[in-house]
Amino acid sequence: MGLGMTISSCHPSVRPMSIEEKSDPMGPLDGYLPYLLNRAGARIATAFSEEVRPLGATLQTWRVLAALHERDGRRMGDLSETTSIEVSTLTRLVDGMEKSGLAARRRDTSDARVVTLFVTAAGRRMTQKILPIAQRYEKVALQGFSEAEAAMLKAALHRVYDNMDALQAP
Amino acid sequence: MGLGMTISSCHPSVRPMSIEEKSDPMGPLDGYLPYLLNRAGARIATAFSEEVRPLGATLQTWRVLAALHERDGRRMGDLSETTSIEVSTLTRLVDGMEKSGLAARRRDTSDARVVTLFVTAAGRRMTQKILPIAQRYEKVALQGFSEAEAAMLKAALHRVYDNMDALQAP
Repeated sequence: MGLGMTISSCHPSVRPMSIEEKSDPMGPLDGYLPYLLNRAGARIATAFSEEVRPLGATLQTWRVLAALHERDGRRMGDLSETTSIEVSTLTRLVDGMEKSGLAARRRDTSDARVVTLFVTAAGRRMTQKILPIAQRYEKVALQGFSEAEAAMLKAALHRVYDNMDALQAP
Repeated sequence: MGLGMTISSCHPSVRPMSIEEKSDPMGPLDGYLPYLLNRAGARIATAFSEEVRPLGATLQTWRVLAALHERDGRRMGDLSETTSIEVSTLTRLVDGMEKSGLAARRRDTSDARVVTLFVTAAGRRMTQKILPIAQRYEKVALQGFSEAEAAMLKAALHRVYDNMDALQAP
């Protein structure tokens, strides 16, 4: 916050439009990591969404199906973390998936308070339709990358994710 | 599609839950690039959103302000591409930003058909409040990265974005 105060006090609060920020502390957008992450992710997500729509799926439905494909019978909290879908949104999403027969909630056999989600036969068929599309996206996204470069990128994205643990309020 | 069909025909359409996919063509989620991109991006976006909310801003407002901070007076199409916010969503967002006095639409002086968006003095003050937070996020996200590693990650994200040009319908 100290930095922000210093910067804003350098500039009068009203000044002509279109003046470039000379003392720019952030630099150009295309060197700013969160921007680059969002931009690449959003571009993939937008195209992928359009491609799975004719199959009757959304990107979020796919995220849940992919998580259940990896490991079936997940708890809602686990599913929320894995899909990066916030719990209340996920609850509504899973309601819709149950309605359309793609997944089913079940009480855990060992602890009835725990609700887990399972893919249904219809959900599995949907997953098998989407999997080749998902694989193609990975291939297109990594075109021209050597195996080592792709591995480095993936490792770096893991590190970025883990680094966010350190985030604390200022 | 052929691959998907082969796999699904290996499995009966109804089978016991919790069976692992043995012949998984996608592999574990945490080796799948679009998943890793979304996960890292979503984690940063969620935390950042919470942090700028007390300032009266949303992540999307910030994306527009950051784009105008880099270059003021952008056309709506340019702004949509830069912020990865779809045009109709952006239009509503900019309506709100005009209402709250953060930005103003103007007709281009050389071509009255072209609408451009400019930050206002209030928008600039908001930008200066958020900039230090944005810088901190970059720093936290890249903690432990050497300069060369950070540059490689950013270059790789540029390549992924550009690679999506090649995307074609199957």
